[in-house]
Amino acid sequence: MQGTMMDVQLTVPTILERIRTQYASREVVSLLVAGRDEAGNPLPHTHRTTYGQVAERARRLAGGLLGLGLRKGDRVATLAVNSFRHLEAYLGVPSAGLVLHTVNIRLHPEQIAWIINHAEDRVLLIENVFAAMIPAIKAACPTLEHIFVLGPTPQPIPLPGVQDYDAFVMGSPALDQYPDLDERDPAAMCYTSGTTGNPKGVVYTHRSTLLHSIVSAPKDALNVGERDSVLPIVPMFHVNAWGLPYTCALYGAKQVYAGVFSDGRTVARLLQDEEVTITAGVPTIWMGLLAELDRAAAAGEPYRLSGLERLVVGGSAAPEAMIRAFERHSLTMLQAWGMTETHPLGTASGVPVGVEAQSDEGFTLRAKQGRAVPLIELGLIDDDGQPLPHDGKTMGRLIIRGPWVASSYFKGEGQDNFFSLGGQGWFDTGDIATLDERGYMHIQDRAKDLIKSGGEWISSVDLENAIMAHPAVAQCAVIAMDDPKWDERPLAVVVLREGQSVSHEEIREFLAPKFARWWLPDATVTATNLPIGATGKFLKRELREQYRGYGQAQGVNTPEARE
Amino acid sequence: MQGTMMDVQLTVPTILERIRTQYASREVVSLLVAGRDEAGNPLPHTHRTTYGQVAERARRLAGGLLGLGLRKGDRVATLAVNSFRHLEAYLGVPSAGLVLHTVNIRLHPEQIAWIINHAEDRVLLIENVFAAMIPAIKAACPTLEHIFVLGPTPQPIPLPGVQDYDAFVMGSPALDQYPDLDERDPAAMCYTSGTTGNPKGVVYTHRSTLLHSIVSAPKDALNVGERDSVLPIVPMFHVNAWGLPYTCALYGAKQVYAGVFSDGRTVARLLQDEEVTITAGVPTIWMGLLAELDRAAAAGEPYRLSGLERLVVGGSAAPEAMIRAFERHSLTMLQAWGMTETHPLGTASGVPVGVEAQSDEGFTLRAKQGRAVPLIELGLIDDDGQPLPHDGKTMGRLIIRGPWVASSYFKGEGQDNFFSLGGQGWFDTGDIATLDERGYMHIQDRAKDLIKSGGEWISSVDLENAIMAHPAVAQCAVIAMDDPKWDERPLAVVVLREGQSVSHEEIREFLAPKFARWWLPDATVTATNLPIGATGKFLKRELREQYRGYGQAQGVNTPEARE
Repeated sequence: MQGTMMDVQLTVPTILERIRTQYASREVVSLLVAGRDEAGNPLPHTHRTTYGQVAERARRLAGGLLGLGLRKGDRVATLAVNSFRHLEAYLGVPSAGLVLHTVNIRLHPEQIAWIINHAEDRVLLIENVFAAMIPAIKAACPTLEHIFVLGPTPQPIPLPGVQDYDAFVMGSPALDQYPDLDERDPAAMCYTSGTTGNPKGVVYTHRSTLLHSIVSAPKDALNVGERDSVLPIVPMFHVNAWGLPYTCALYGAKQVYAGVFSDGRTVARLLQDEEVTITAGVPTIWMGLLAELDRAAAAGEPYRLSGLERLVVGGSAAPEAMIRAFERHSLTMLQAWGMTETHPLGTASGVPVGVEAQSDEGFTLRAKQGRAVPLIELGLIDDDGQPLPHDGKTMGRLIIRGPWVASSYFKGEGQDNFFSLGGQGWFDTGDIATLDERGYMHIQDRAKDLIKSGGEWISSVDLENAIMAHPAVAQCAVIAMDDPKWDERPLAVVVLREGQSVSHEEIREFLAPKFARWWLPDATVTATNLPIGATGKFLKRELREQYRGYGQAQGVNTPEARE
Repeated sequence: MQGTMMDVQLTVPTILERIRTQYASREVVSLLVAGRDEAGNPLPHTHRTTYGQVAERARRLAGGLLGLGLRKGDRVATLAVNSFRHLEAYLGVPSAGLVLHTVNIRLHPEQIAWIINHAEDRVLLIENVFAAMIPAIKAACPTLEHIFVLGPTPQPIPLPGVQDYDAFVMGSPALDQYPDLDERDPAAMCYTSGTTGNPKGVVYTHRSTLLHSIVSAPKDALNVGERDSVLPIVPMFHVNAWGLPYTCALYGAKQVYAGVFSDGRTVARLLQDEEVTITAGVPTIWMGLLAELDRAAAAGEPYRLSGLERLVVGGSAAPEAMIRAFERHSLTMLQAWGMTETHPLGTASGVPVGVEAQSDEGFTLRAKQGRAVPLIELGLIDDDGQPLPHDGKTMGRLIIRGPWVASSYFKGEGQDNFFSLGGQGWFDTGDIATLDERGYMHIQDRAKDLIKSGGEWISSVDLENAIMAHPAVAQCAVIAMDDPKWDERPLAVVVLREGQSVSHEEIREFLAPKFARWWLPDATVTATNLPIGATGKFLKRELREQYRGYGQAQGVNTPEARE
């Protein structure tokens, strides 16, 4: 029927044009490395620019890349920290019709090379602090034709042909006409952390990027607007820094980037000095900030953070104790959940109408992962793929669908994760979760970390969060140990706070009021630290290896396990 | 390349499912007519239901309509006030794959019949207060097969075959599987007011409805979230009540509907009693509310509206004086602009960073129509279709493009309004506006109301807003009168406040500091009222007719017009 709406495509150039025309004077702040102290630690220098400048340089980057002969869909890799230059790549690369491939700098060099080869990247933008890696990467990655160094290029240049990014950008003509883009064209890609098997590439489209950006903005999600100042501590190589560079640009929020810095003191100062209203990061970052806020308050020189409206926490579950601890500083944490495969925003954990945020029920809900944002659907299935009830109790495999959820991995890998239910496509998250009647989702475990005891499931995550509330405990991981009778039983591995100690029996007594007896760990061991992977999560796989056979070797007693 | 995102379609059932699963207990409040007082005025009765109930009934409505044999794309008309039943139609009709056609009840009965026939509506849902119109409509509209009466059906039933809506809904099976919908399928339609020529049908798609809903939510637009209570005074037959029924449902906000009531007292009470946080309507509604707030404050019994965060004003320009007047009650107006052809949200007039909302500059900006919301692009062209600069001074025809802007009218009418510029499709709004460097748009006039004096343009809207700030003036329209020397010259038609008077010279003196001398009206006439059309706007066409030849007949002097 005649009479319809314009078929305007949702594409990244829309965001670039918006900062260029509406928000040209809005600031972008980056902490760069000014030098080193005597111990070799980097010293921060505050760099200031504007969206107008970022837009101009992004358009020159786009023009320059196309001038190199790159064609639509070609991949441009970044190995970079959070800064205005990375933001230029976020906007300029997709606006040229190319695909921004952000590589995780914390991966092992062999994995980095594997990923660049798998993505067949033609260009690499690499931060000067990682320049020492260039010869090895160049040798291992034959598809790389051009390497540009972000920030002052070290002298002598590591390899012939390696060029200075700033000189390339400023010497290139600004792209004045964006290529014809379909909203389903690829815009960016990230590889999953790959704790099992090879990393898998997730490809974001222009459409998914734009939809994710506008759904992230409202107050029940991240609450981003023009008057905000936003500090994404989450790295820009990690699921597009949860989409914040795009969301903030689309809505004109000031962006603040901490570069290589993530310690509590630098973060606290930046939050204060740049009048940050919204910040986002993983729980380990907030542990460091909390310690610094506690220290400063105890010293009678508290930070002035009255404008800080919310700390968004994601990447792994925030324990309720942490949420409560920040309330003591009058700071509000908002838990959000997502994955590389979901762009990432899937849920946000605001409290519903009728519940006080600071009540016990409020804290309990806020420690869950929350409810689906608009356009996202969640479900639970059993091991046979059958739907399970949303009753807040039944644990099942969490499945998800929505317009910014992957339907396949790059080059068609990992097809087992995608399946059809009721005629609709779904992604299997690999998480075990519950969903309640009003939609609150609570992750219980990764499917592979779940402890299967006597045919029943025990959530390692629930036990860890509870144990971490114990005053003597700094960190905790609960893993399965083999058990001849029950197949698996829980073992708690704890890192103690300085000068503290705790016995296994004390841990059990501490947990007893909250859990069925058969959930309680059969053993507690202390460790000096826990192995952490490239995305900041505990590597439980390594712990399981380490403690394989621990129960039998130590003669751990499990007679009461099912009583 | 393999590796992409799910092709999940953006459709209205997503909204319906969301209130059913996440927000089932959230309230929907409607003022219904309980009876009449001695003077025959309707008496309000407060009806309360929940999103859970609305969702259940919307699914039954969908099931019932498909049971009548309606097929995908068939139109279902409503002639209804703002209430939960109309909301059920908003959600249920498009979820069945049918098209919701909201008909403006303020139109002349012949126009209503013309529109129903043009749309070829098969079903009509008509409010019981309009039941007297049924025989005439039925006789004039042969495509109408089924008529359902919303609310208690008058006895005897006006015509055989006319049915009770509630009985139809509750007697129908809930649709349990939504039809396969493409996001570009039509979801709803509205006819333009048609102050010139026949009304033209604008068809909204599922995609445009969903995109409009999510772009409306963030704080720089309407700021809608789950904790809000929203009262759309703007009628549901007027551009989908600016999309609020969909936006509020998607985000779980409580909805409050005033039914047939729009007087200041009823609105003020409803705002107070239902703890409304956001309300939206045209300037004439807010004039009535303002008078009631002034009265109550003077009587020492002010309303308690501390939770009311913003009054959204649109439909026609809000004078700066009105925005300032509401600030005296500590209430914030937000101006938004749009048209039937733009769904409607095109711009919102928040103040940029660095400007205080209550400063003179802030008020000046807030009295403009504002900046484009994300995904909307604005432009200015001259009479030859050439682009004009965005300098805040140059007036031009305002053009717009975006994914919720019409690309054609129903049945291909009015093709002149759509054109291509730089390879992209645009809609010509018929407004004359300026755009400044940072994107603020300011409507100067409708192209047809513009006063063309000696080859230069004079904005009737600017003069009207300035004159309405005069203490003696209640309403004002400025129109062109023919002039032998300058072609056209401005004539001010004013409605005085009770007991007030003003001379032409006083009006000129009042305007003199703000405008060039040649902009000042050459004559001022008083009237007891101004003709108002079906969408609440002044009918300047009628005034022009009325005052045709006024200048020559009265011997108005214009020697100084161009000095």
